[in-house]
Amino acid sequence: MEISEKVLAMLTRLGFTKYEVLTYWTLLVYGPSTAKEISERSGIPYNRVYDTIASLKARGFVSEVESSPRVYVAFSPSIAFLKFKKEVDDIKRQLEKELKKVKVKEEERPGIWRTKDLDEAVEMVKESLDISEYEVILVAPEKFLEKLEDNIKNALKKGVTVSLYTEERIDLSDFTKIGNLFVRKFHKLNHFIGMFDGREVIDIQNIGFRPRNPPSFKATYPEIIFSQYSFIREAFKESTLILESINRKDDLRFFTTFHAVDLIRRHLNDSNIYAEIIAKNLTTGEIEELRGRVVGYTVAMEEGIDNFDLETDKGIFKIGGMFAVLEDYETTRIRLILT
Amino acid sequence: MEISEKVLAMLTRLGFTKYEVLTYWTLLVYGPSTAKEISERSGIPYNRVYDTIASLKARGFVSEVESSPRVYVAFSPSIAFLKFKKEVDDIKRQLEKELKKVKVKEEERPGIWRTKDLDEAVEMVKESLDISEYEVILVAPEKFLEKLEDNIKNALKKGVTVSLYTEERIDLSDFTKIGNLFVRKFHKLNHFIGMFDGREVIDIQNIGFRPRNPPSFKATYPEIIFSQYSFIREAFKESTLILESINRKDDLRFFTTFHAVDLIRRHLNDSNIYAEIIAKNLTTGEIEELRGRVVGYTVAMEEGIDNFDLETDKGIFKIGGMFAVLEDYETTRIRLILT
Repeated sequence: MEISEKVLAMLTRLGFTKYEVLTYWTLLVYGPSTAKEISERSGIPYNRVYDTIASLKARGFVSEVESSPRVYVAFSPSIAFLKFKKEVDDIKRQLEKELKKVKVKEEERPGIWRTKDLDEAVEMVKESLDISEYEVILVAPEKFLEKLEDNIKNALKKGVTVSLYTEERIDLSDFTKIGNLFVRKFHKLNHFIGMFDGREVIDIQNIGFRPRNPPSFKATYPEIIFSQYSFIREAFKESTLILESINRKDDLRFFTTFHAVDLIRRHLNDSNIYAEIIAKNLTTGEIEELRGRVVGYTVAMEEGIDNFDLETDKGIFKIGGMFAVLEDYETTRIRLILT
Repeated sequence: MEISEKVLAMLTRLGFTKYEVLTYWTLLVYGPSTAKEISERSGIPYNRVYDTIASLKARGFVSEVESSPRVYVAFSPSIAFLKFKKEVDDIKRQLEKELKKVKVKEEERPGIWRTKDLDEAVEMVKESLDISEYEVILVAPEKFLEKLEDNIKNALKKGVTVSLYTEERIDLSDFTKIGNLFVRKFHKLNHFIGMFDGREVIDIQNIGFRPRNPPSFKATYPEIIFSQYSFIREAFKESTLILESINRKDDLRFFTTFHAVDLIRRHLNDSNIYAEIIAKNLTTGEIEELRGRVVGYTVAMEEGIDNFDLETDKGIFKIGGMFAVLEDYETTRIRLILT
C-alpha cells in the first residue's frame, strides 16, 4: 500500500508514530480489516499490529468489532479528528489549570500579540473579559457584541463593571439585570477597542466593514495603553450616557477614574458614597489600600483633570486615575459603595 | 523552572518536542522574554532556543515583538490551541482529499462504528448525508433535524431524495424548493434512524429523551441494514404522506423500491414515467444498467411485495428492491423521470 509522504508528515506532526499512521491509513483505504490483513496491506510486522491498534484505540481513531478473527474499523477523519480536537481541548484546559498554579505573579515584561484571524481576535477578547476584575470598556459595533454575549454576562455576574460605547441604543435587555452596566452612545466606529482593568488593550481594525482577516492585536505596552486610554477619554467627552443599570450598589468597580467620577457626580447628591481603592502613593511610590468616604470630586475634562476626594482616617486625599500626576494617589482599582 | 510531567506528557502527545514544551511553558509562566531569559529560565541550551522558537512560531504558539534584544511572547493556551485545532482541520481536509484519490472501490468488509458522544453521532449522520447519492431516509424528531439542516439542504441540492418520517407537520418551508422531498407523519419515536443509499444505517438511541451520551452506531452489516429496512417498511405502512415536494421531475432518485413504487402509484395516471436503474440480475448475478418505461407496479405491503414493471428493449422486467427474490432484478439505485 502506498502512503504519500504528505499524509505521513501531516500526521506525524500531530504526534502519531509511523506505524500508527500506516495502520489508520490502511483501515481508511481498505475498510474493516483483521490484524493479519492490516499487516499484509501496510507492511507493518504482524507482531507490532496489536500495540499499534491499542494506541490508536486509546486515541479514538480505531475501534473493533466482535468477530473471529477480530475486525478493526477506522473512524472516518471527521469523527476521529472531532475526538482529537476534544482531546486537544482537554489538554488545553489541563494546561490552563497547571499554569494557574505556577504563573509568576510579579510584573511581566509587556508584549504584543498580533493576529489576522478574526476567530483568534474574538478569542483574545473573550479571554480578557474572563480574567478582568474591575472594569471592562468596550467600544464596539452592536453586531460584534453578540459574539461576546456570554462572556459579558459572566463578567457582569462576577461584579465587573461593563462600560459600553456603541453606535446607538441597542437591545441590551439581556444585560441589564445582572451587574453594573453603563452604555454610552458614540459615533460609528469601524474598529473594536477593548480595555481590560487598564492592563490590556485589544484592537480589531475595520471590524465594522466585516473584513475576512482584520489586523488585530492585544497589547500590554504602557504606551499603547496610554494611547487607548486617551482615546476613550475623548470618546467619553463626546458620548451621552444612554443606559445606567446598577445592580450591585455596594460593589461598583472601575479602573477608569473619569467613569467613577461621573458616577460620583450624578449620585453624590442623593447617596452616601464610600470607596475602597488600591492605589500608588505618588509621593512614596508605595502601593496602599485606602478606604473612606467620597467627599468631593473634580471634573475638568478639557484640562485633563478628573479625580475625587477621599476622606480617610489619615486625612482627605485626592485620588487620580491612570497616569495621574497632580493627585496624591494613582489608581486603577476602585470600588465604590452607594448607600 | 519546574514543569510537571503531566504537562510535558500532554504536549508531547500532540507532537511537541521537549524543548518546544519547555519554551512555550516558560513564556506562559514568565511572560514576554528574551532568548537569553528563556534559556536561563528553562534550562534549554542557548544555541537551541532559536530553532525551538522558530518551530513554535511556525505552529502559531509564539510570536515576537520588535525590540533589541528581541522579545518573544506566547499566545495563551486558548489562542494557541484555536490555531492548533484549525491546523488539525486542515490536516483532516488534506487527509480526506488524499483518501479520495486512493480509496479502494471494491466491496469493503462490513463494520460497526460505535460512540456514546452525541457530537460524534451527529457528525456521522452529516458525513453520511454528504456522501449519499440516491436517497436518504431519516426517522427523526424535529429538534434533531435542525442540527442537520445544512447537510439536508446540500443533499437536496445535489439531487438526493430526502424521505423524512417525523412526528407531526413541522416547518419545512426551507427545504421545499430545493430538491425532491417526501415527508411522512410517523408516531413519536425516541430514536433517530438514518438510512443512506441502502448502504449505511445510523441509529442514535433515546435521542428523544435528550440524554447526554446516547449509545449510537453506524453500521454497514447487511443484517443490520436488513433489520432497519424492515423497520422503515413498517413505518411506511403506518405513515401518511403529508408533504411531497418534487423539484427535479427528471431526476427522482430512490434506493427504496416501496418509496419509488408509491410515487409511481400516485403519478402513473397523469405522467409518463421512465426509469434508469443499476440492478443485479437475479438469474445471472451480474450488475446491469437498465433503462425503459415504467408500465406497471405491484404493492402488497402486507405480503411484503413491492416492485415495478420496466419495459426495456429486451422485454418487460420486474424490478424489486433490496433483498428481492421474486423479481427479475434487485436494485437500490433507481432514477425515475416524470414527463
